[in-house]
Amino acid sequence: MPDALQQRIDFIKAIDALKEVQRKTYLLTESRFENSAEHSWAVATMALTFASYAPEDTDINRVIYMLLLHDIVEVDAGDALLYDDAARAAKAIQEKEAATRLFGLLPEEQGREFRAIWDEFEAEESQEAQFAAALDRFIPMLHNLETEGRAWRENHVSYQQVIEKNQKIEKASPELWEYMYTRIKVAVNRGWLAP
Amino acid sequence: MPDALQQRIDFIKAIDALKEVQRKTYLLTESRFENSAEHSWAVATMALTFASYAPEDTDINRVIYMLLLHDIVEVDAGDALLYDDAARAAKAIQEKEAATRLFGLLPEEQGREFRAIWDEFEAEESQEAQFAAALDRFIPMLHNLETEGRAWRENHVSYQQVIEKNQKIEKASPELWEYMYTRIKVAVNRGWLAP
Ligand SMILES: [Ca+2]
Repeated sequence: MPDALQQRIDFIKAIDALKEVQRKTYLLTESRFENSAEHSWAVATMALTFASYAPEDTDINRVIYMLLLHDIVEVDAGDALLYDDAARAAKAIQEKEAATRLFGLLPEEQGREFRAIWDEFEAEESQEAQFAAALDRFIPMLHNLETEGRAWRENHVSYQQVIEKNQKIEKASPELWEYMYTRIKVAVNRGWLAP
Repeated sequence: MPDALQQRIDFIKAIDALKEVQRKTYLLTESRFENSAEHSWAVATMALTFASYAPEDTDINRVIYMLLLHDIVEVDAGDALLYDDAARAAKAIQEKEAATRLFGLLPEEQGREFRAIWDEFEAEESQEAQFAAALDRFIPMLHNLETEGRAWRENHVSYQQVIEKNQKIEKASPELWEYMYTRIKVAVNRGWLAP
């Protein structure tokens, strides 16, 4: 049985693989797809930057913890396009197994704590989880809007799909949704999104 | 003058470039060099995971904020090898200018707050900054130790250099340093580090 320090090292080593999980989102320069590790950094940093758009009494530190950990299950389960419902359903099962494996590398108590953070994010019930999920949706939309809808166009994503999958941002942050909604309308007008 | 929301969006857009700043550290799979954005995620997640190795009363959230922001100046200044003193001195000046530019994108009060977080990290005086710096040193050493010293060998780094540049980990976390020191000795024995 490894000691607690070695268990934590083993966890950090295991999640290094997140740097090689390719997402469906382009970098702003469009030089390549983004990976899930650098996305996790961007969205956690966005939480710190956009804390004032969260509902009152939101624990922004909890939001940041969720965003640091939310994608690590992709080490085993990969990323799936937000708009590909079948792929996402298949992935959900693999993700639960991945959570068991990865958080199981940690000392037991810490493994439980981290699993609770991940479960909370997945459930999207607490206001912290809803705000974290809103940012996780906001940022790939921003990348689409800044790249003339490149990933949307390549995946034939429609206005209707974007609204359906992302409108929940409104509940977590009306101000962020208003900004995004205005820009989505422009995207449709410019042909970056199928109407 | 853009509104506060647009200023924050502009900041998030500007720091996306950190995903294209290449470090001198290999991924654990050795498939490529790591970039500074995914490194920032890994070290912030490490802070969450290794919080119990920090000195008592360390504000781990402040540590995480520092680690999320610590490298964004590399958007303008690039990364330099830890063991290349000349490159690092040149970079230090560019980094200050980069900090002024990037934090200057934000609403003024938030820009000041973020700059204070970055300055605190750079000064390495508070126990939070010292613990953050310790993790920032620990993790590339771990990558070297897990890849038979690959980046060390390629850059002709010696045992003496590694000890000089990293021994400050001991003050921030004796337990983490003890672990690392033991592994560094093994690395020398195996020829991964010049004695
Ligand atoms: Ca995500």
